[in-house]
Amino acid sequence: MAGKKAVLTPQAENFPRWYQEIIAKAELADNGPVRGTMVIRPYGYALWERIQAEMDSRIKALGAQNAYFPLFIPESYMRREAEHVEGFAPELAVVTHAGGKELDEALVVRPTSETIIGEYMAKWVQSFRDLPLLLNQWANVVRWELRPRLFLRTSEFLWQEGHTAHASYEEARDYARRIAHEAYADLMVNVLAIPIVLGRKTARERFAGAVNTITTEAMMRDGKALQMGTSHELGQNFSRAFGIEFTGPSGDRELAWTTSWGTSTRLVGGLIMAHGDDHGLRIPPVLAPIQVVVLAVKPEACEMAHRIGRELAALQVRVTVDDRTDVPFGRRAVDWELKGIPLRVELGPRDIEAQTAVLVRRLADGTRDVIPLADLSSTVPTLLRDAQRETLSEATKARDARITPVRSMAEVPEAVSAGWATLDWDLLGPSGEAELASAGITVRCLQRADGSMPESDTEPGLVAILARAY
Amino acid sequence: MAGKKAVLTPQAENFPRWYQEIIAKAELADNGPVRGTMVIRPYGYALWERIQAEMDSRIKALGAQNAYFPLFIPESYMRREAEHVEGFAPELAVVTHAGGKELDEALVVRPTSETIIGEYMAKWVQSFRDLPLLLNQWANVVRWELRPRLFLRTSEFLWQEGHTAHASYEEARDYARRIAHEAYADLMVNVLAIPIVLGRKTARERFAGAVNTITTEAMMRDGKALQMGTSHELGQNFSRAFGIEFTGPSGDRELAWTTSWGTSTRLVGGLIMAHGDDHGLRIPPVLAPIQVVVLAVKPEACEMAHRIGRELAALQVRVTVDDRTDVPFGRRAVDWELKGIPLRVELGPRDIEAQTAVLVRRLADGTRDVIPLADLSSTVPTLLRDAQRETLSEATKARDARITPVRSMAEVPEAVSAGWATLDWDLLGPSGEAELASAGITVRCLQRADGSMPESDTEPGLVAILARAY
Repeated sequence: MAGKKAVLTPQAENFPRWYQEIIAKAELADNGPVRGTMVIRPYGYALWERIQAEMDSRIKALGAQNAYFPLFIPESYMRREAEHVEGFAPELAVVTHAGGKELDEALVVRPTSETIIGEYMAKWVQSFRDLPLLLNQWANVVRWELRPRLFLRTSEFLWQEGHTAHASYEEARDYARRIAHEAYADLMVNVLAIPIVLGRKTARERFAGAVNTITTEAMMRDGKALQMGTSHELGQNFSRAFGIEFTGPSGDRELAWTTSWGTSTRLVGGLIMAHGDDHGLRIPPVLAPIQVVVLAVKPEACEMAHRIGRELAALQVRVTVDDRTDVPFGRRAVDWELKGIPLRVELGPRDIEAQTAVLVRRLADGTRDVIPLADLSSTVPTLLRDAQRETLSEATKARDARITPVRSMAEVPEAVSAGWATLDWDLLGPSGEAELASAGITVRCLQRADGSMPESDTEPGLVAILARAY
Repeated sequence: MAGKKAVLTPQAENFPRWYQEIIAKAELADNGPVRGTMVIRPYGYALWERIQAEMDSRIKALGAQNAYFPLFIPESYMRREAEHVEGFAPELAVVTHAGGKELDEALVVRPTSETIIGEYMAKWVQSFRDLPLLLNQWANVVRWELRPRLFLRTSEFLWQEGHTAHASYEEARDYARRIAHEAYADLMVNVLAIPIVLGRKTARERFAGAVNTITTEAMMRDGKALQMGTSHELGQNFSRAFGIEFTGPSGDRELAWTTSWGTSTRLVGGLIMAHGDDHGLRIPPVLAPIQVVVLAVKPEACEMAHRIGRELAALQVRVTVDDRTDVPFGRRAVDWELKGIPLRVELGPRDIEAQTAVLVRRLADGTRDVIPLADLSSTVPTLLRDAQRETLSEATKARDARITPVRSMAEVPEAVSAGWATLDWDLLGPSGEAELASAGITVRCLQRADGSMPESDTEPGLVAILARAY
């Protein structure tokens, strides 16, 4: 590797400290001035923009359209769905004054938009012909955090929230599942290169107001779980509260079935913790805002570095040329390593004489190869494809090696000290779940024995996946 | 045109009512539940997304990087720059409670982010090597509105705000101008097809805290002006208030020179009012989220309609196929007309027999041509290019015909009753400006006689452009 002395606290020594340091040193984010808020710096935001673009195209492919609803929600809206307000009340930020006056009704800064979108769906949906209504919103939301952690839990975060209304239970259920599989899991696995467990949340862990929550769970490199995104069947709870009714083909008035689903800047935190190592981030090439950096070691190499940059850009490779030869080469190499750029092309005057370059593969632990300049254009795209595949396969192997099937509740705490445990849900149940929860261990989701999605929490033969979680 | 009876109040009869109706009938936006807020519906948001994409690429081409700063600003930050807080105080929304408690310090919901970004620039900028620092943010902001109007003045709106820091006055000045010309005016003219007057705001109309505001002004079809976007030189006001200092090449500590610049969802309002007519919107092709709609008149035409859709999509045309043959054809035609889709391809069974289609050009007042199906692929891209050019040229001619040069203040009120007036600034001055302002007439900007940008308000020979404005 480029750096001799460690620039980061090793993960094995102190994972939370490693996480804090990598966020600062790779210039991803800063703490905001208000407790729990976050400043997303350009490189962190570039990662989020790439996630947004990939997510947006998947959501649109599933037929949803983007729209925008107001930040401020009348407090009375929140109260209309009983479980929903109970779930969110402790986290709300409230505007009481505006335009120099005290407001007649306090305004909630949206923690999520089910209520305000429900109000408008009720206006827009009249007949079965208006269904399905498939909406998505990219927005900021606010949930007051007492124990904030950058990207993972912040008082304000950025996300997409989908909200749909359907004519039947089955259609709503299927759409919520398609989002979880075809948008969320597909992006997480094929773009972020993070293996995902898809399952059903228990009643205890469900979204406030949902009848079913589908979750996508990933293992971080410390063995803990991160909930990456969720998709909810809301049944008729919100359509009843907001009057989302339609006239069916036979002329009857019926309540619509709604869903909601969200993923957030938390995904950036997942990316950091799923792949990062003691030298910094490791960004999978399909996601990477910069896939290749060409480093000119000395001023004499700058011209050739730019020529290589242009060649790679012409192949649709996202490439940056680092010609800051007034900054020591070692420092620049360490910086790009910290930022997790998949491929580094290092070019010194002697390389140019020999018509070669040094190619450093970040995702393969910094493997260095000397290759002829003439071969770069054919080699780079192949190496990027390989790196994507290998990153996912490495993460999958590492995760699977840390999942321990156990046969009793008593074995769970040890099994989850460095990974996940699986246990028959029949042996645990809601009371065992509550007991483990008091020790900080949660059921991440329920699956059938074959890994498929249960229809209810009470199906026989379900498997609970247990972990400590972020 | 497709509709026989008017679906909209004619512009000449009542322009504000026309504006309200077109927004409702083209399904662009709804009023939010909280006074002054706005729900942006999918078609309105699609227009905004296209503006965003075009603006984002221009901003990035000028070297700025996207980042994200918190929604909540400590009240004390706002107070550090005296003019700034004075300008914004009456419009602020304030969070006093969060997480179930009253906060120690009230939080302002950002009306703009100069203060919070200034705080972080001060942390990030140390040496002249850290400059220029070129940041942009896509975000929602809140300015309490007493007289809201959808897209034009809403209590919450979406925008981009750029914030940059530079080592010298000249560099900051030049960057603020490049944004106004190369990002803002270029997008407005070449994408929105709206002619723009670029000029300098008078001291009275300047942004709170700026030393110079450059504005881009457009004429709406009722003759009023709309400020489309502004770019501000902030001098050293914010760097002094927030301590944005750097060590120069000679080792001296110096204050940075900053700029800020913004465009918002107001541009959608400008688009509506610059081109819309009594039949609905007219969207220029380069912007249009849907450039061509292929309408199957009867079920027998659906297959061919989809084939044409695929052919046009393969040419990178943004095309939609309307195969809802259970909805009366006339109603669908009127709807697409309302939505301002540049080209409509109408396809009935007899057209298919004759291997022809009817091509309706929205931007040419609904001109209808029968053309052979075999010619569609070659004709459509040409017609789209022509429509873009003609839309701009039509708007430019209409605007220029409504600008009246006057030689005294007394002539201004009549001249601005249906357009703009120009008057020597020397004949008006700040006191004349104040007098006209009390009658609702404002100086939109100052230009030199040759249309170029003045270096100060006091240069001799400047021309004031006067109008009633949104």
